[in-house]
Amino acid sequence: MKAEIVSIGTELLLGEIVDTNASYIASRLPALGIDLYYMHQVGDNLDRLLEVYHRALERSDLILSTGGLGPTEDDLTREVVARALGEEMSIDPQLERELRQFFGQRALNMPENNLKQAMLIPSARSIPNPVGTAPGWWAEKDGNIIVAMPGPPRELHQMWENQVAPELRKRSDGGILVSRTFKITGISEGGVDEMCGDLKKSANPTVGVYAKPDGIHVRIAAKARDEQKAAALLDPVEARIRDTFANNLWGTDDETMQAHVGKLLTDRGLTLATMESCTGGLLASTITDVPGSSTYFRGGLVTYATDVKAAHGVDPQLIEKHGVISEEVAAAMALAARTELGADIGIGITGVAGPSEQEGKPVGTVFVTVDHKSKRHSHTGKYPGGRIDIKNRIVATTLFQVRRLLLELDGIETSNWRR
Amino acid sequence: MKAEIVSIGTELLLGEIVDTNASYIASRLPALGIDLYYMHQVGDNLDRLLEVYHRALERSDLILSTGGLGPTEDDLTREVVARALGEEMSIDPQLERELRQFFGQRALNMPENNLKQAMLIPSARSIPNPVGTAPGWWAEKDGNIIVAMPGPPRELHQMWENQVAPELRKRSDGGILVSRTFKITGISEGGVDEMCGDLKKSANPTVGVYAKPDGIHVRIAAKARDEQKAAALLDPVEARIRDTFANNLWGTDDETMQAHVGKLLTDRGLTLATMESCTGGLLASTITDVPGSSTYFRGGLVTYATDVKAAHGVDPQLIEKHGVISEEVAAAMALAARTELGADIGIGITGVAGPSEQEGKPVGTVFVTVDHKSKRHSHTGKYPGGRIDIKNRIVATTLFQVRRLLLELDGIETSNWRR
Repeated sequence: MKAEIVSIGTELLLGEIVDTNASYIASRLPALGIDLYYMHQVGDNLDRLLEVYHRALERSDLILSTGGLGPTEDDLTREVVARALGEEMSIDPQLERELRQFFGQRALNMPENNLKQAMLIPSARSIPNPVGTAPGWWAEKDGNIIVAMPGPPRELHQMWENQVAPELRKRSDGGILVSRTFKITGISEGGVDEMCGDLKKSANPTVGVYAKPDGIHVRIAAKARDEQKAAALLDPVEARIRDTFANNLWGTDDETMQAHVGKLLTDRGLTLATMESCTGGLLASTITDVPGSSTYFRGGLVTYATDVKAAHGVDPQLIEKHGVISEEVAAAMALAARTELGADIGIGITGVAGPSEQEGKPVGTVFVTVDHKSKRHSHTGKYPGGRIDIKNRIVATTLFQVRRLLLELDGIETSNWRR
Repeated sequence: MKAEIVSIGTELLLGEIVDTNASYIASRLPALGIDLYYMHQVGDNLDRLLEVYHRALERSDLILSTGGLGPTEDDLTREVVARALGEEMSIDPQLERELRQFFGQRALNMPENNLKQAMLIPSARSIPNPVGTAPGWWAEKDGNIIVAMPGPPRELHQMWENQVAPELRKRSDGGILVSRTFKITGISEGGVDEMCGDLKKSANPTVGVYAKPDGIHVRIAAKARDEQKAAALLDPVEARIRDTFANNLWGTDDETMQAHVGKLLTDRGLTLATMESCTGGLLASTITDVPGSSTYFRGGLVTYATDVKAAHGVDPQLIEKHGVISEEVAAAMALAARTELGADIGIGITGVAGPSEQEGKPVGTVFVTVDHKSKRHSHTGKYPGGRIDIKNRIVATTLFQVRRLLLELDGIETSNWRR
């Protein structure tokens, strides 16, 4: 099945919002066996929308649209679909009842404009929207399917997951694409590429190597009739990848490094505490983005002012001797975090987030220490980019160092890892 | 001038990346007096790209594309433009010299594939790319302009700002759109709308009201021949808006609440410290996203475990009596932050980020206190959404409460503000 996506709304063409709806839908089509050839953003303009719809009906089987289903004059999607299919709209009594009920339950008078949202055409049925007033449309005529969905992401996601995707799955003419992603750290992109060797020549599944903020990703994707046949193609390749990368492979698909480290800590019954300077609390915030982090995260200190470091266990003479931006101070911060906050593992971070250099050290310089009573890891880095980029890179590196220390505590050798 | 944007790359159609390039360009066209009617994303496929280019050449004056300028077989933009304009490509000797120089300076052998990047057609000149190997193309024929720019955002932004935008500004047939945004808190969206009154009927400048995560935005946009004439239209409306919203108006355009609060603190010579529980360090991290925040931010404590709160100045009996998730504990945390970290203003945050309720309080419940020796503000909230949404909303609310306290210290009345 060939599809096009049409995102509707003048705000897209003014660059006021980024069209995340289109990529949301696009990312979900391969698993349904649907090929996507075009995505468009068009403003709230009848003629231009009609032109795009007419063209899409000629060359594609399926049009997926978002936006333009509200109650105002600007909301033209229903009218465009009706005209593109050559049909007249009329009010559907059942939809009108539901709409009046929606407002009634909230003790609100329904503005008469909202009646637009109860319109239908003979070829369309409505798609329920439990989280908003705009029902979607599922229209089908002469072999084409048009699905009109609302623009607010929360409403779109709900409608897609519960109504649209299951229906499209039924119609899929076979042939789906299933992918798995494996996340690797401690080896360079070139190194990963080389280690994949002849796997990269495989046509089905295909094997690709990508550099990402949380490490190197190896993505394998199989085309098959169904999930089971895809799994049969993917399983042996996955086994080879797991074997090749062993402990350098830490996660799959949507797994984050902070969730992975959280799981390692939980499994080992270990706790964590932080003392941050240049990252300003971003490490603690990232760790606590993970549900359940309270079982292993004791707490953190953001010691932005130098005397706050001294007041919380970092020897002022050490700071005096080596400077705030030094490996020695990072180590003292990690130890202070561990002892002051009563954790098994302490992390210390000191560096220069910018925009100006500090103590003669250039912007992007960082010292990170991860400290456990029986083992300590120190890392020195120099990162490019702006203040917020630098903070994010330091946090990613630090989580990687925590994983490394945890593996070494298990007796796994990581000294030849790079980062 | 009528424009279309074409973003080129199969990864866009797989939903692997969101097309931020298109919205980057789109947001910059109104100020150049260019009308944008369509945006498209198309894969690395010659036929489909040609179809989009042919159609765009018929109905638009200007095609702005990003992507597809690399050295690989998948990179088809040059070939598509050549075919769409009916011309033959050949290697430009000057471009070839520059390309070989680029590699030579890095002591690298140039792969022969890269010669593609030295191609031109008679109607096109190259656009220099000082930060990458792919020069852009500026092609002009029969009244149409085609501008091909690279896909990596850093290369695109540089080329747009320094080469493409200035050239388009010269060609602009007059009539630019200049907008200003005013950011308001403490008044509901409906209230702001009502207070704008007859301003909303104005045709030039237009006045729009939008609800955003950092408050309500009033955006005014004027069409005029040049910047000076636009300013003459905007200035009196800006004066009325500033007069109407007085102290509820806190910022303009790209200003953030954390930068604004930082400026207020700097102007008053006051310092800040935080004690966070459910936000896990996100408040401290947001405050320290602002360059120069070290002058007013002393530091923060992330007291995730209850005994860590007790060890840092929160009375355990108070926690026992009222529960960790309580107004009393938020107030004690704010006071402890202020005294433990030696700041003029302390902030305490305790709440339930989820996914499970805590002490019988539902997910999204939060208590925030902002404490100064002569004044204290407490805020109780209940926010919807997932864990990360809730953390972000609490941080936005807290920064707003800090601003409010600072204004009250100046004798400005804010008791009738809502949030």
